[in-house]
Amino acid sequence: MSERIEKQMAFALEIDKAKNIFRQTHLSSNGRNENDAEHSWHMAIMAYLLKEYANEEIDIARVILMCLIHDIVEIDAGDTYAYDAEGLQTQKVREDAAKERIFSILPEEQKAEFIELFDEFEAYETADAKFAHAIDNLQPLMLNHSNNGGDWREHQVTVEQVYRRQGKTKLGSDKLFEITDRIIRDNIRKGNLIE
Amino acid sequence: MSERIEKQMAFALEIDKAKNIFRQTHLSSNGRNENDAEHSWHMAIMAYLLKEYANEEIDIARVILMCLIHDIVEIDAGDTYAYDAEGLQTQKVREDAAKERIFSILPEEQKAEFIELFDEFEAYETADAKFAHAIDNLQPLMLNHSNNGGDWREHQVTVEQVYRRQGKTKLGSDKLFEITDRIIRDNIRKGNLIE
Repeated sequence: MSERIEKQMAFALEIDKAKNIFRQTHLSSNGRNENDAEHSWHMAIMAYLLKEYANEEIDIARVILMCLIHDIVEIDAGDTYAYDAEGLQTQKVREDAAKERIFSILPEEQKAEFIELFDEFEAYETADAKFAHAIDNLQPLMLNHSNNGGDWREHQVTVEQVYRRQGKTKLGSDKLFEITDRIIRDNIRKGNLIE
Repeated sequence: MSERIEKQMAFALEIDKAKNIFRQTHLSSNGRNENDAEHSWHMAIMAYLLKEYANEEIDIARVILMCLIHDIVEIDAGDTYAYDAEGLQTQKVREDAAKERIFSILPEEQKAEFIELFDEFEAYETADAKFAHAIDNLQPLMLNHSNNGGDWREHQVTVEQVYRRQGKTKLGSDKLFEITDRIIRDNIRKGNLIE
């Protein structure tokens, strides 16, 4: 087996671990916690399904790749809940170290490509990254809403916190923010968010 | 909310159920059974990572979409183990009914697009479908190999059965079949497959 394909297969096996990184979001029908691999799969399909609502022209193949790989660093860095202020302070340092270790398993030019995609997603600046983030926000919002806001109630999340994160969906898609806003207002009415 | 986006969001929520469809394959490090959503995510990344080994020219964006959606029908039809002769006889009927119900949640033209992709994958004829199948074969083989062939031992799978399925990897990628063949021979030596 050539060294190149050996590296590629080693990376393929390594990322299996993302299936054991659990998020705060619960599956629909009040299911168990969701893991990173499932979340990324769900996002990739939703991005394709909803691509017509992107504010700007996007390269949907790149957006899908971003969705697929954006949480791989959590194999080392762990999941940081969107409303965990303390965890968010150290998130970048932890994720940068993870990025370097995990993507270094790949052949050099594939490492560079994946890191570029990951960094672009994190930077939240390009049209592709902004749309990928809109989906990264909408997917757990949808699941949480289907469970009557259980994740928000569990963590006593405030309206302000939710809008600070979910408000950025507007950057990628005004249309998806419309849905987001309707869902948030519904959950405020139901007392699932702290005002 | 327009009827169109309502349908798209209903479909997005429906496919969450794929995370509860468990396969016979176990995660690496002798982990739990893998579910369809995780398997599809893993395949999509592996397809992108290994695209240079396709025998023919492929459209990798289409291959990735095939990987992402190919098991959605199992939400209704359940997972059919690759070496379950009885289950395989009724698989097509069960999956056709599932395909119709689940993809009908989508707006008409998206339903048609997803069904076309699914049917193309199932038909195993185009370059894209053959490469997607090569990955669908390689991904569980890799995990099973990492667990010393535990899934094969559990189901008392024979060498002949494995080659009947995994031999078709050649149609999509001679190179990936080389790796496959090396892994199978290693497992024969270790007594993990019945001769």
